[in-house]
Amino acid sequence: MHVDGKPYRTIWLAEDGWSVEIIDQTKLPHAFETVCLQSAEDAAHAIRTMQVRGAPLIGATAAYGICLAMHAETTDDALDAACENLLATRPTAINLRWALDVMLQHLRACEQSARAKAAYQKAAEICDEDVVTNQAIGTHGAALIAQAWQRAGKDRPVNILTHCNAGWLATVDRGTALAPIYHAYDEGIPVHVWVDETRPRNQGAALTAWELGKHGIDHTVIVDNAGGHLMQRGRVDLCITGSDRTAANGDVCNKIGTYLKALAAHDNGIAFYVALPFSTIDWSIADGVAEIPIEERDPAEVTRISGRADDGSLATISITPGNSRAGNYAFDVTPGRLVTGLITERGVAEASSEGLLCLYPEKARATGGTKQ
Amino acid sequence: MHVDGKPYRTIWLAEDGWSVEIIDQTKLPHAFETVCLQSAEDAAHAIRTMQVRGAPLIGATAAYGICLAMHAETTDDALDAACENLLATRPTAINLRWALDVMLQHLRACEQSARAKAAYQKAAEICDEDVVTNQAIGTHGAALIAQAWQRAGKDRPVNILTHCNAGWLATVDRGTALAPIYHAYDEGIPVHVWVDETRPRNQGAALTAWELGKHGIDHTVIVDNAGGHLMQRGRVDLCITGSDRTAANGDVCNKIGTYLKALAAHDNGIAFYVALPFSTIDWSIADGVAEIPIEERDPAEVTRISGRADDGSLATISITPGNSRAGNYAFDVTPGRLVTGLITERGVAEASSEGLLCLYPEKARATGGTKQ
Repeated sequence: MHVDGKPYRTIWLAEDGWSVEIIDQTKLPHAFETVCLQSAEDAAHAIRTMQVRGAPLIGATAAYGICLAMHAETTDDALDAACENLLATRPTAINLRWALDVMLQHLRACEQSARAKAAYQKAAEICDEDVVTNQAIGTHGAALIAQAWQRAGKDRPVNILTHCNAGWLATVDRGTALAPIYHAYDEGIPVHVWVDETRPRNQGAALTAWELGKHGIDHTVIVDNAGGHLMQRGRVDLCITGSDRTAANGDVCNKIGTYLKALAAHDNGIAFYVALPFSTIDWSIADGVAEIPIEERDPAEVTRISGRADDGSLATISITPGNSRAGNYAFDVTPGRLVTGLITERGVAEASSEGLLCLYPEKARATGGTKQ
Repeated sequence: MHVDGKPYRTIWLAEDGWSVEIIDQTKLPHAFETVCLQSAEDAAHAIRTMQVRGAPLIGATAAYGICLAMHAETTDDALDAACENLLATRPTAINLRWALDVMLQHLRACEQSARAKAAYQKAAEICDEDVVTNQAIGTHGAALIAQAWQRAGKDRPVNILTHCNAGWLATVDRGTALAPIYHAYDEGIPVHVWVDETRPRNQGAALTAWELGKHGIDHTVIVDNAGGHLMQRGRVDLCITGSDRTAANGDVCNKIGTYLKALAAHDNGIAFYVALPFSTIDWSIADGVAEIPIEERDPAEVTRISGRADDGSLATISITPGNSRAGNYAFDVTPGRLVTGLITERGVAEASSEGLLCLYPEKARATGGTKQ
């Protein structure tokens, strides 16, 4: 996507041919700054501190973390240590494990002397594949937006509610939940996006609003509390969110609060779609609500908020009494029964074992599936 | 209630015998400051800027606003003008209209020369009645908490989730939603409160956390997104919120986001109670979801957040891109079907026309009711 006219991905190889550059997403929307990663630990730090975030981008950054490790040392020990360190950064996003598995499998089969080059090639493939995947998600999802526009009589914009940021900033490019919106907009369908601010880290208010604004898409930032009211009053046509991990039964783990919006959509007969690439599906999890581990993060993300002071500087303030405890649960799980459909690169699936296996029949053969 | 050992109400007559003092709730939890109101416009300003908020306290402040108007001038015109100005401050909270109606009816029947004294007497009555009402709500609600404690085997605290602030700061004293919690705690039942921060104005993080802390009640501040996840994982025993206006059919208008928590409680089989005084019931509204007007407030409440800078000063920061629009809907309506019970000063009612008329049979006689 473009930032002030210049094309960007969220992660790219630096001009030196080996170090890796990222956009520091903790500074957005107040400042656009890039950071250069020069070691696997730099990559782990970027994931841990959420300079990069979003399941697909976490996977891509981990892949480049392995490249940086191999640039320094190509032994099995170095490979294993880098994998272990990167895997420990975020427990919920499944793409992290997926990308590391892809890298590990590929590099274990290589001679040590060939590993560095092979790693950079594979990481680039993972990134390019992410972009192609997201473009396909965009095409499939845009058809749903076009249908909603038609149903509404084509005389007003389609109102789409999204939670957190599953835009191009959450991926290598194009986004997952926002890919259909970009695609529909680029095709001339008028869209308006309700942007949940997405406490505690405000990825909606900070990142989704920023990237929609940069693309010229009409949007309104709302507090996370507002979506139910808007749905009740007929002001939302459909919802699209991303997913950090999707269970084999169609349960969707995504940013905390997604479940509440799915409940409201269900209560008001509004379509609730989740957009996700194949790499986000965890075929080993049969029941998402019961089994997906939920990351608990630093309570300071709840008690303190960062933003732009009136003099333009970045500032952090405390919003709770000093002696009050806070809890910070990063994700929740939306049962598949509340999800109208899963928008993947292969098309739109019902959020169930059967639905997913229809799109990914090779997984039924590989795992025995749930249908015998 | 006590603040650092000293008993306080949220509104009281100053030592001069005519001006009125309030706690400036926009400064909490960072600073405890009182403000002296000396005119009806001062009272309107305090309501408009939310120095005082919470349906019962808004009503009490409006009543004292009439006193201040009568202190200056006791003509019919002065009375009508003050009523009109005060009524325009907040469109959703029904107690405002209720308190002004009580004052108006009382004062219209008085000689002009007797109006000032009569106004102060009536306002004091409204305040004292609020305290008695809330104590009764506390007694009835505490019984529900005691039952939940017993059901859980009495071997751990009862986990109660609340939204916004319906504590003593929202009333003259004791609170509505928090009155049962204070009552249960004072009776020795171990309680732990999940405090929704309640964006955009953070009345939970700022006010509920502050007053629970001052009373020594164990609590954890969470983002508004987290409640569904906690309910799914069995970490909430019951929910209690307040109400800004309750329709005759049991629909409850309360702080934006209440509806989402009620949906999650319903989906997880968790009791969802709403605590409210009689003065919050709007018998003229037959269908709350369809008919209650929802206040839209300044979008800056969404895009800007105030808190305590690290040097202890109060600061305000912006959290959205400068060119992103925001929407600020202050309330939503929870359908009675999602409410387990309405805790009133007369006992616990089913959230329906029938339930409310069982507790308030005089309203069936007065209005013809819904049962013939």
